[in-house]
Amino acid sequence: MTDRHRPEFPEHITVTVLGLGLMGRALAGAFLRAGHPTTVWNRTAAKADDLVARGARLAGSASAAVAAGDLVVVCVSDHDAVRAVLDPLAGGLGGRVLVNLTSGTSRAAREIAAWAARQGADYLDGAIMAVPGAIGTPGALVLYSGPRPAFERYEPVLRRLGGARYLGGDQGLSALHDVAVLSLMWNILNGFLQGAALLGAAGVDATTFAPLARTAIETVTGWLPDYARQVDDGAYPALDSTLDTHVAAMAHLIGESESLGVDPALPRFVKALADRAVAEGHGGAGYAALAELFRTPAGERP
Amino acid sequence: MTDRHRPEFPEHITVTVLGLGLMGRALAGAFLRAGHPTTVWNRTAAKADDLVARGARLAGSASAAVAAGDLVVVCVSDHDAVRAVLDPLAGGLGGRVLVNLTSGTSRAAREIAAWAARQGADYLDGAIMAVPGAIGTPGALVLYSGPRPAFERYEPVLRRLGGARYLGGDQGLSALHDVAVLSLMWNILNGFLQGAALLGAAGVDATTFAPLARTAIETVTGWLPDYARQVDDGAYPALDSTLDTHVAAMAHLIGESESLGVDPALPRFVKALADRAVAEGHGGAGYAALAELFRTPAGERP
Repeated sequence: MTDRHRPEFPEHITVTVLGLGLMGRALAGAFLRAGHPTTVWNRTAAKADDLVARGARLAGSASAAVAAGDLVVVCVSDHDAVRAVLDPLAGGLGGRVLVNLTSGTSRAAREIAAWAARQGADYLDGAIMAVPGAIGTPGALVLYSGPRPAFERYEPVLRRLGGARYLGGDQGLSALHDVAVLSLMWNILNGFLQGAALLGAAGVDATTFAPLARTAIETVTGWLPDYARQVDDGAYPALDSTLDTHVAAMAHLIGESESLGVDPALPRFVKALADRAVAEGHGGAGYAALAELFRTPAGERP
Repeated sequence: MTDRHRPEFPEHITVTVLGLGLMGRALAGAFLRAGHPTTVWNRTAAKADDLVARGARLAGSASAAVAAGDLVVVCVSDHDAVRAVLDPLAGGLGGRVLVNLTSGTSRAAREIAAWAARQGADYLDGAIMAVPGAIGTPGALVLYSGPRPAFERYEPVLRRLGGARYLGGDQGLSALHDVAVLSLMWNILNGFLQGAALLGAAGVDATTFAPLARTAIETVTGWLPDYARQVDDGAYPALDSTLDTHVAAMAHLIGESESLGVDPALPRFVKALADRAVAEGHGGAGYAALAELFRTPAGERP
């Protein structure tokens, strides 16, 4: 218990959470569980009831909340809501570290960074790679970008939320990684749902397909380090099949989709991408050669 | 050693492999390593040299090869090549089990099944989910469809190649699962390469992105059983985000892609799919509601 008052011991650090939606409440709950004196504020105060019952202090205004915390975390619905909360706080943030965990764009993050700098505050932009229910568990990951000393100073506190990964000094990096990861997730889900539709039309349940899909995903995941190296090197020797072979199998997928009466739009889009890479001379290369296409919009390609 | 001559012991079973491309040689090599008397044949006999040095018997003709094997495996370049090898064998296959591991369509598999039935042979169509180098290891998976007794009789031999999964009696199922799995793989790779292009334009290496991509993939993989159940039930309550929320993030991805000068075609396609689902009333549902779109071609939707 005596250790609680040693400043290097992170439980000592006071935290403020602005915004108590589903995610904001999960964040405040994780800080509370770890023993941090936690002050919360929300436009609608009733959202704080459960947290107050668990020991949080409810501030009457956002500026009173900010005055109570070493570390100020904001998590609201969108960028406009962030500005609506932060703008009236000008001045009150001086010397504090502001961490914004609201989803947004890299442009918005850099705009807040410039604003925070004018207030004399350090700004970390964060992207939460987890559902609210996972916050505070090792399964949650949060990405941070902004000044490294600010991240390192509060890293033990931020780790109360789950894993914490530092991306770099440019505050736009969190938002960019966020959409890159979401894009990967959407594409996986689209691939799974399209495969499930195809097999469903042949009488195979999605539940039956799922374990095979898992095996396939694990296999592809194992290839990613090699693919990534090829992307970085700009050289794409075929590690398994050539793009020509992939394109032939893509034509099969389109034919099977058409025969079974499921939507061939996604397979046609996928094949059109690969066809373009073949047309640009990558037919004998591996799949990673498509990186060349993604790098440059179609209209601007040589 | 004495057990080797007990007929129920699988090493006793003789195997014939027709077609000695990279994959055919890997298949024959795995049977040889497991101790099966293995006969091989290829249009170009020189491809057999290494296998003969390891104990394979090279047949002078495809029909002589078939006569030497209880189990006949064919693995050639495509369906036309399968027919070119098999057609002259009519009659010689009676009472044998023919396993075709050549990539092809479900229509082609059912056509060969009908032909094999006329020859008095049992026919299993297979799809290899592995690169040649993985054949014979636990990392290789082969899917089989066709008469269950034929699969069960030779399952211990087929397991020499890696994992063996039986899909059902319809010989078309292997090809359908093959393209469903490939589709999933292509979509994962597209999502990764697009994300890598976006981050690359911001100065982040694909090699740096890869571990985060892996974490994201593992997270989505954990969701698949729930998504599959929703697809089978035709009901899509939001497990995490609603489609409306996804669509807002998709707009961010398109904006970031445009700002950084990377190709926004894939993000636009992904958002157009989700927009259609929202327009059909699924905005408050979870991502799996897209299954409804994949099930029916756009032109045929109500």
